[in-house]
Amino acid sequence: MLAPGSVIGILGGGQLGRMLALAAAPLGLKVHVYAPEAESPAAEVSARWTREGYDDDAALAAFAADVDVVTTEFENVPAATAAFLAARVPVHPNPRALGIAQDRMLEKTFLRDLALPLPDFRPVDSLDDLAAALRVLGGPAILKTRRLGYDGKGQVVIRAEDDPVAAFDAIGRAPAILEAFVPFATEASVVMARGPSGAVQAFDVTENQHEGGILRLSRVPARIPPSTAAEIIAAAETIAVALDYVGVLAVETFVLGDGRFVVNEIAPRVHNSGHWTTDACPVSQFEAQIRAVAGWPIPPLIRHADAVMQNLIGTEADQWAVFAADPAARLHLYGKGDARPGRKMGHVTRLQQKSVP
Amino acid sequence: MLAPGSVIGILGGGQLGRMLALAAAPLGLKVHVYAPEAESPAAEVSARWTREGYDDDAALAAFAADVDVVTTEFENVPAATAAFLAARVPVHPNPRALGIAQDRMLEKTFLRDLALPLPDFRPVDSLDDLAAALRVLGGPAILKTRRLGYDGKGQVVIRAEDDPVAAFDAIGRAPAILEAFVPFATEASVVMARGPSGAVQAFDVTENQHEGGILRLSRVPARIPPSTAAEIIAAAETIAVALDYVGVLAVETFVLGDGRFVVNEIAPRVHNSGHWTTDACPVSQFEAQIRAVAGWPIPPLIRHADAVMQNLIGTEADQWAVFAADPAARLHLYGKGDARPGRKMGHVTRLQQKSVP
Repeated sequence: MLAPGSVIGILGGGQLGRMLALAAAPLGLKVHVYAPEAESPAAEVSARWTREGYDDDAALAAFAADVDVVTTEFENVPAATAAFLAARVPVHPNPRALGIAQDRMLEKTFLRDLALPLPDFRPVDSLDDLAAALRVLGGPAILKTRRLGYDGKGQVVIRAEDDPVAAFDAIGRAPAILEAFVPFATEASVVMARGPSGAVQAFDVTENQHEGGILRLSRVPARIPPSTAAEIIAAAETIAVALDYVGVLAVETFVLGDGRFVVNEIAPRVHNSGHWTTDACPVSQFEAQIRAVAGWPIPPLIRHADAVMQNLIGTEADQWAVFAADPAARLHLYGKGDARPGRKMGHVTRLQQKSVP
Repeated sequence: MLAPGSVIGILGGGQLGRMLALAAAPLGLKVHVYAPEAESPAAEVSARWTREGYDDDAALAAFAADVDVVTTEFENVPAATAAFLAARVPVHPNPRALGIAQDRMLEKTFLRDLALPLPDFRPVDSLDDLAAALRVLGGPAILKTRRLGYDGKGQVVIRAEDDPVAAFDAIGRAPAILEAFVPFATEASVVMARGPSGAVQAFDVTENQHEGGILRLSRVPARIPPSTAAEIIAAAETIAVALDYVGVLAVETFVLGDGRFVVNEIAPRVHNSGHWTTDACPVSQFEAQIRAVAGWPIPPLIRHADAVMQNLIGTEADQWAVFAADPAARLHLYGKGDARPGRKMGHVTRLQQKSVP
């Protein structure tokens, strides 16, 4: 267990890092943010910020020397950065988990090897690959870049009547996968935590609504069969154990009308669909992550309320005064200056009396 | 209403400032800490820290120029500092409220003028004053310095058999008051908030246990008659209105066995006896203070649980691993390095199902 006064290094300076820093403080743990951007919501609540690139070895070495453990708020940490730091200081999640999560082909293959339910998929490195994959999977199907996709970026739906060439162009002809379309009834995710002892636990499964690829709304409990929720949690545990994971891990799934589900993707970090835990739980996903990487025990991940979390995207956050005046709304703003379209500026959580599970 | 991105200046860099800063962040408000000490729990969670003395006009002017409003985590802000800042930027609580709260003679006189119940008291500026006051008030009585007393410092009990000269020497012959001893059954405090519109509300009254002048334990609800609790809240509202107060104000009282009470002292700030609000309420005393000084509406100050808050004093915080492993204990460490005897290092809050009020 890292003693109070120890320093947690956080790669990435966005809102997830900010909420991690806010969760570290009551435990007496200090935070050092490493992020190259000019504006950092996380650094705004931290005394230590290294503003350098992820390829700056001197800055990374100094960072490693100042911290007792490193974690990350985003999965796309360059492999060389993760390896450089891991040679000097414990890094959670481990570089292998990061590497798998940042490449859809590695991720899907890893999940398939664990015998978890998945949409059918094929690698696509060329137009010939794409044509062959479309013949096997049929349409509609989804073409996704292997790397650097988030919030719906880097993916395009291909229907039977669509031109595959235009679709491949739309993602810049980057290395990709083609994935069978899943006619899901519900999107559901689970945020789970694995402590340093290997003990796993999960928050209740969350139901999500996306628009334009961006999470709009999360609701807990998810309106899915309890047996499905239990299977989703079991899948997440299988994944965490297979990755020898320490920390918080999110697994996104598609749930079909008959209660079956397939895994969509994994996120090796705290997750937007777990933001409700800050207001509805004694221990949030952020505190769970800080405790895990600091080697502290993680209390039961229980919740005391039902919750609906609504993201404030772009100029929606301009309505802050309405939310500030609504006693039922717990407001969380990220301190970002520029409300660009599609940018996550904050969220609001509304609690309701806990329903019988 | 100050818009998100505005900067709250906080005078003082201790744990109260730290918890104020942690409450400001989710509202999208930035914090600038002004504190001269080498170590600052508040600055540890803030991007801006001016480490200069309270008499440094150039530093104060730069601070005032950087912030949109100033508040304080301690009542002993020098009058000249408060006046200097108030000429440049809104200061809440206002300098008059600070001035009254930092001088026991002004405070008692102010409370007496409001016809609030008080222990009898007399000013003591000399040994002759003390002898005269002891003749009127009898013994035991308590001799307290007018200024700079906290956590039991600057006060001494004088019993009938004690030597008044030794007592006066014990407080350095500083300007003082002599106060009649109150044979109280319960110590009770209330933390209330007054918004910029003048609306007042209060958290539930808290029961406190001190040891050696330092708060050990707070318990809510207080085990006092409901009518007494209502009267204590009414007294706090009277005080806040009379001070034209904006922000959070604490009032400490002694409750007698028959349910009557007297006001002991007021604190123009968030208060140790309100720390339980962080874990037991949707809106904590810290968020209420930030909202009030930022001109934001304050949601209802309700609580969803009963609570017992235990201070971790001096080396008690060395037991952090025990509290970290106790699922029933919500741990709050202040990030202080040196566990000096009597120093408040953190606190632990334990919640229980809410009893019927």
